Amino acid sequence: MASRSLSLPIRHRWRMSCYFMPRKGDPKYHPKTQRAQNHLVQNGDTAELVSHRLLLDLGFIKPADKAPGMYHYLPMAMRSMDKLMGLIDAVMMKYDCQKVQLPTLTSSHLWEKSERLDSMGKELMKVKDRRDREFVLSPTHEEVITRMIGSGPPLPRKELPVKLYQITPKIRDEMRCKFGLIRSREFIMKDLYTFDLSQENAMETYETMNEAYNEFFQLLNVPFVKVVGKSGNMGGDLSHEYQLPSKIGQDNLLICGACHRGKNAEVSTSLSDPTCDQCKGTHLWQQHKGIEVGHTFYLGRRYSQSLGAMVNPGNGKPIPAEMGCYGLGVSRIFAASLEVLQTCPTKLSWPKLIAPFTLVILAPKKGSKEYAHFQDILEFYDDVNSRLLPNDVMLDDRDNLTIGRKLDEAKTIGFPYIVVFGKTFFNADNPELELYSAETDTTMMLSPEAVKNFLNRANSERCPNLSL
Amino acid sequence: MASRSLSLPIRHRWRMSCYFMPRKGDPKYHPKTQRAQNHLVQNGDTAELVSHRLLLDLGFIKPADKAPGMYHYLPMAMRSMDKLMGLIDAVMMKYDCQKVQLPTLTSSHLWEKSERLDSMGKELMKVKDRRDREFVLSPTHEEVITRMIGSGPPLPRKELPVKLYQITPKIRDEMRCKFGLIRSREFIMKDLYTFDLSQENAMETYETMNEAYNEFFQLLNVPFVKVVGKSGNMGGDLSHEYQLPSKIGQDNLLICGACHRGKNAEVSTSLSDPTCDQCKGTHLWQQHKGIEVGHTFYLGRRYSQSLGAMVNPGNGKPIPAEMGCYGLGVSRIFAASLEVLQTCPTKLSWPKLIAPFTLVILAPKKGSKEYAHFQDILEFYDDVNSRLLPNDVMLDDRDNLTIGRKLDEAKTIGFPYIVVFGKTFFNADNPELELYSAETDTTMMLSPEAVKNFLNRANSERCPNLSL
Repeated sequence: MASRSLSLPIRHRWRMSCYFMPRKGDPKYHPKTQRAQNHLVQNGDTAELVSHRLLLDLGFIKPADKAPGMYHYLPMAMRSMDKLMGLIDAVMMKYDCQKVQLPTLTSSHLWEKSERLDSMGKELMKVKDRRDREFVLSPTHEEVITRMIGSGPPLPRKELPVKLYQITPKIRDEMRCKFGLIRSREFIMKDLYTFDLSQENAMETYETMNEAYNEFFQLLNVPFVKVVGKSGNMGGDLSHEYQLPSKIGQDNLLICGACHRGKNAEVSTSLSDPTCDQCKGTHLWQQHKGIEVGHTFYLGRRYSQSLGAMVNPGNGKPIPAEMGCYGLGVSRIFAASLEVLQTCPTKLSWPKLIAPFTLVILAPKKGSKEYAHFQDILEFYDDVNSRLLPNDVMLDDRDNLTIGRKLDEAKTIGFPYIVVFGKTFFNADNPELELYSAETDTTMMLSPEAVKNFLNRANSERCPNLSL
Repeated sequence: MASRSLSLPIRHRWRMSCYFMPRKGDPKYHPKTQRAQNHLVQNGDTAELVSHRLLLDLGFIKPADKAPGMYHYLPMAMRSMDKLMGLIDAVMMKYDCQKVQLPTLTSSHLWEKSERLDSMGKELMKVKDRRDREFVLSPTHEEVITRMIGSGPPLPRKELPVKLYQITPKIRDEMRCKFGLIRSREFIMKDLYTFDLSQENAMETYETMNEAYNEFFQLLNVPFVKVVGKSGNMGGDLSHEYQLPSKIGQDNLLICGACHRGKNAEVSTSLSDPTCDQCKGTHLWQQHKGIEVGHTFYLGRRYSQSLGAMVNPGNGKPIPAEMGCYGLGVSRIFAASLEVLQTCPTKLSWPKLIAPFTLVILAPKKGSKEYAHFQDILEFYDDVNSRLLPNDVMLDDRDNLTIGRKLDEAKTIGFPYIVVFGKTFFNADNPELELYSAETDTTMMLSPEAVKNFLNRANSERCPNLSL
């Protein structure tokens, strides 16, 4: 039992020749690029963004048929999403948050109680069951989790703060879907809800979770800015947004020229007041565009009062919980990171922790002199994929393509590291491999052992909770 | 960067004192058991099963409000589900399946093309968007994935078989929900779809995936039986079911007394024919009840023809793919495993690989002499939880409960291993710990080092792809 169990992942090989990644122009598909192109246009997917266009062309995602704003995640994108969710799990765990899962369908009664059933308008999709009971296809779960807490005994003081999160598909009937996964109708979101005794405690929790968000975006290693947020229909009076600055962003941000803190322009009524709320300086605001990827809200008792989530102070009767909620747009972070890191229109650039594979190994074309040594390449692959970068290495074993062609494609896909088994490995007395690093855009010639030492160090920079 | 990233999971402590697990009768909730009881009955959840009753009473799951047949997974259940999904991922990887994610909402047009929009009746929930386009809340994805393949170029022969799976929440408007998570309206399912060139290839893939299912259930270590299945509305003519024999099962199985192979009774028109289809023996059928937890179908061209999923034979024009589909009811496996392994009405018994935590460590009550040595216990915990059973150890640090009370509760929850810091650790010259094993229902007295050696061996029996 033990050995069978452990033997599962180690012997696997990720091979490009049979990886489902329908690429535009890949010869194995006898390219019908025109047809693929037409299909995308038919779906109303105009792919305004280069990063989105590359995700489509490289076979990472596909638009769903007759369903604008909905996408299929193909295996390469799914691996990246799984890594991203693992990273979020790791950060949530560090900050003592516990994972739950709540249903997609939630009773309309709950949304009536919070008075959001009508106020959220047409973005909220509703459906009736066979007994004519109405349900909401939930884009968020304040009502549900507050009622879940409310249906049990009051939370004991000792257990506070209670911090519960989930990572699930959410549905919002966007009037105007845009930019692929950045503004889609079905998306993956991490939503966290916290419960405290007093406003003071809730503020401490709010600060702690904002630290968690800071740490998450630092780990992801994307440029981000935290700004004072608009509260929207959440009903709280304090909120912050995590924004990735980008010219395609749909939010207007005002950043103080002195302290570099800022706010969503919607918060401000007048652009002509130059006083910064934070540093009180009177420098002029700098205007930026941003993609909102995270949002934290202090909710107070807005939901706990109407839906009965109580806490027990220990020295008196139960009182409604002080709440907060904290969202991360997981699929949006995936897409927006690629958009903001893109420096060249012909290749994807990944946050290293969520690249689908950390390394690709390129094998030579069939018929070449080097191809005779294929077994050596497999041995190298198996060692690296089982020991140094477990389950995180792709082998480009397509035997009808030259190394040069594969290298171009690997750079387009954006693998952080590329190892090439070229002539220098087979011809020299001193066998050497080419090791390419996307981050520095440089190639080193190293002995196989030196490559392994390098990759061993690279492993320590990988996602801590890597599940694939 | 590297060290921060790696430091994330290691320092965490899973502490019972602040774990969200609202238990009936837990003193920290100032028990209002009557109120909790009433709540459950109000929700129409009569909890006919002891295992389901225990999941509710122990705070693993909670019924959703005004939504019969829908449940909240609380942190303990979520950990088990995450392990179960990790195990499925590991088996799917071994058998070269690749993970995708398809939307919950899928266009009704696709279901019209396959002629299932009406034939699936009221189980299929439908919703209209703001532009009056109709979508199905998908309980299964044959139409969607077939169209996804169909919208691209034909699959190249070299890449076959293409095997794509997802693990996602599914919705089915069951007329009669029953037995909690075993028959619910929103559930988590693993669904795999395969694409082949010929019927012969499709049969090979069918056999391979049935091997994968065998291996999965063997790893899970639950008693199961594979029987010839009813094809239902899938439209194929060959199918097998994976059933957990149980008196509460809703399927009637006929098992041959000679060869022990069997079939779903719905397949057979007459119980009076004693001839076994498999071994041709004429022994009498043995009747069993089973809970269906997995189903494999050979689909042929039922979907590929109407939705245009083509494969390229390389030597002629593209032809419709030969397909198969393979389901595992993930949330049902979670609940049904507990039901069939239950041997005692007062405690849960887990398949070891999916127990929420492999080990719990019990700390003494505050005020006891032993409590002064709390720091020793924390050091032991940190070592085991970071090194031997990474992130898989609970610390029962509730300081108002006696060791005896905690031990009873730990046995009820069914942790595979329990370590007790009792008098023998603090009083003896030779400090010893109690190590309880649920599997053998025995307690050993061992030195701390011997306990660690034992747990190190236990680690090799854990889920290979453990993400938590």
